[in-house]
Amino acid sequence: MTGIEPIAVTMGEPAGIGGETTLKAWLGRTDTNLPPFFVIDDPIRLTETAHSQGWTVPLAEISDPGEAAAAFDSALPVLPLHLGMTVRPGHPDPALVGMVVRSIETGVDLCKTGKARGIVTNPINKHVMRQGGFAFPGHTEFLASLLKLEQSEVMMLACPDLKVVPVTIHVSLSEAISSLTEDKIVETAKTAVTALIKDFGIASPRLAVAGLNPHAGEDGDMGREEIDIIIPAINRLRTMGIDARGPKPSDTLFHRQARSTYDAVLCMYHDQALIPLKTLGFDCGVNITLGLPIVRTSPDHGTAFDLAGTGRASEQSLVSALRMADEIARHRAA
Amino acid sequence: MTGIEPIAVTMGEPAGIGGETTLKAWLGRTDTNLPPFFVIDDPIRLTETAHSQGWTVPLAEISDPGEAAAAFDSALPVLPLHLGMTVRPGHPDPALVGMVVRSIETGVDLCKTGKARGIVTNPINKHVMRQGGFAFPGHTEFLASLLKLEQSEVMMLACPDLKVVPVTIHVSLSEAISSLTEDKIVETAKTAVTALIKDFGIASPRLAVAGLNPHAGEDGDMGREEIDIIIPAINRLRTMGIDARGPKPSDTLFHRQARSTYDAVLCMYHDQALIPLKTLGFDCGVNITLGLPIVRTSPDHGTAFDLAGTGRASEQSLVSALRMADEIARHRAA
Repeated sequence: MTGIEPIAVTMGEPAGIGGETTLKAWLGRTDTNLPPFFVIDDPIRLTETAHSQGWTVPLAEISDPGEAAAAFDSALPVLPLHLGMTVRPGHPDPALVGMVVRSIETGVDLCKTGKARGIVTNPINKHVMRQGGFAFPGHTEFLASLLKLEQSEVMMLACPDLKVVPVTIHVSLSEAISSLTEDKIVETAKTAVTALIKDFGIASPRLAVAGLNPHAGEDGDMGREEIDIIIPAINRLRTMGIDARGPKPSDTLFHRQARSTYDAVLCMYHDQALIPLKTLGFDCGVNITLGLPIVRTSPDHGTAFDLAGTGRASEQSLVSALRMADEIARHRAA
Repeated sequence: MTGIEPIAVTMGEPAGIGGETTLKAWLGRTDTNLPPFFVIDDPIRLTETAHSQGWTVPLAEISDPGEAAAAFDSALPVLPLHLGMTVRPGHPDPALVGMVVRSIETGVDLCKTGKARGIVTNPINKHVMRQGGFAFPGHTEFLASLLKLEQSEVMMLACPDLKVVPVTIHVSLSEAISSLTEDKIVETAKTAVTALIKDFGIASPRLAVAGLNPHAGEDGDMGREEIDIIIPAINRLRTMGIDARGPKPSDTLFHRQARSTYDAVLCMYHDQALIPLKTLGFDCGVNITLGLPIVRTSPDHGTAFDLAGTGRASEQSLVSALRMADEIARHRAA
């Protein structure tokens, strides 16, 4: 290890926008001051994608991530996978799911051995993955399995103005409410605070905790979850020395002045976290998996089959994910 | 009627910030190009409030709203109520609830007789009102009773960048889900669209309809309310010729580009509507009651007892409410 290990970028769903955004990120590498990265992908597919858009992107096929940093200035380093077939943008083929998975596994292995500083995953499509025999709901659960985690992983969404951590994620709103427990809030908060310290270098993180109900329940007038679940969780966190504040009414928690009073918000459900984040910064959101032994971020968007092949998909979220992975790796190394 | 009837502003909770924000709004009347208004309030209390802040606000006691417009440039017109006691900012007294109610009733009466073009209500406090024997949850329900409405009134929140209409409002999140029905969505949407046409002058309103669940349920994978309730409601609205679109995932519905595709969003619950609104424009949100025979708006904040007496409360939301009432009255008169 030389101390300038690159970041690994996975292929993601090859019929999605991942290839295009990766090429665009590399093309803008100087302006955005990107850390060196390499992509685990099919060089033929990448060449065809660049060619179809009229982009000039020289590729540097590498056999080891150690070669990436030196090549990065003049070419996009590619650790090659061979799909063995032509990909039609917007037309996913479940036959390629095995290669999508191999790209992720390779990236994780390289992080575990220290050859990559972190992994940035391009988006995959849940339905296509399921058709191709992939047994996990998404990246996060797959990574937890690859890394043999015992505790549950936690998702943070971050843009320059805001960091949010939802306690419940991809379940119906009804199930988000019924599955909310004091333990789940406490565990998620602990993981979030540990990450704020170790990954973001915030010595004494201030964690705002959102209420579940309108006006945070208004003393039980509009729902009892604050009284029965959230306040007891906050009290437990405080006895651990964690600066948890709330429960706060979620509608007044995200304007500029409010955002200056905390480092992150613990949210009770998906849209309570995602609405303010994407309202403030639609293109720059980054998804960060907290509580993993490796650094993992991803752009905060999907495969966008409707945009694939047009060259119009924004690379901004991928760029933010790359920079965030770099920042986290630096903090962990410090 | 001269065509320049003023707008009536109610006292609101006298221990709250309403008096201060009303005085500040009048002081800034030229810069903000405010329509003439009068306040139904106690001149002694207003004089004391101005004096305590060192503000020079001449009052013009009027006996009829017809005198307000001529007085407005040089003095704040006051249709007097006499509280008969000193008010301590931040220390509400339930004994004054009767006068708070009388201020509202007077304003409504003046709107009904055409002497006022609309009513802007300063905030009241639910707990204080209840202690004082007021039987309604808030202004909106009281106005519906005073105006003997049969259909249910609908709340719109508006800031310059966004209009939102929640289908369910001040109930727990759990109850918001269980009380959501196809009929309620259809009725609320109809009221919203009628208001967009008549009150805002939008000839062909485009109504975005938010989903309830994350990713709008993702085809039933994360909740069935979209399939069972929201989509049937949208289909009914479309057969009526209403341009209703959705259900849309609510996290990607409020960024700048998305906001350009609709005139208002029908939201399924309080915070789905209020989070984006207050994230985008904390101080300028206006609450508009749709479906009333009179024009009624209010600032989108509470009594703020902690700020009362400091002079620091922002008048921006009240100013926006006054301008919005004026705009709606003009559209209705056109």
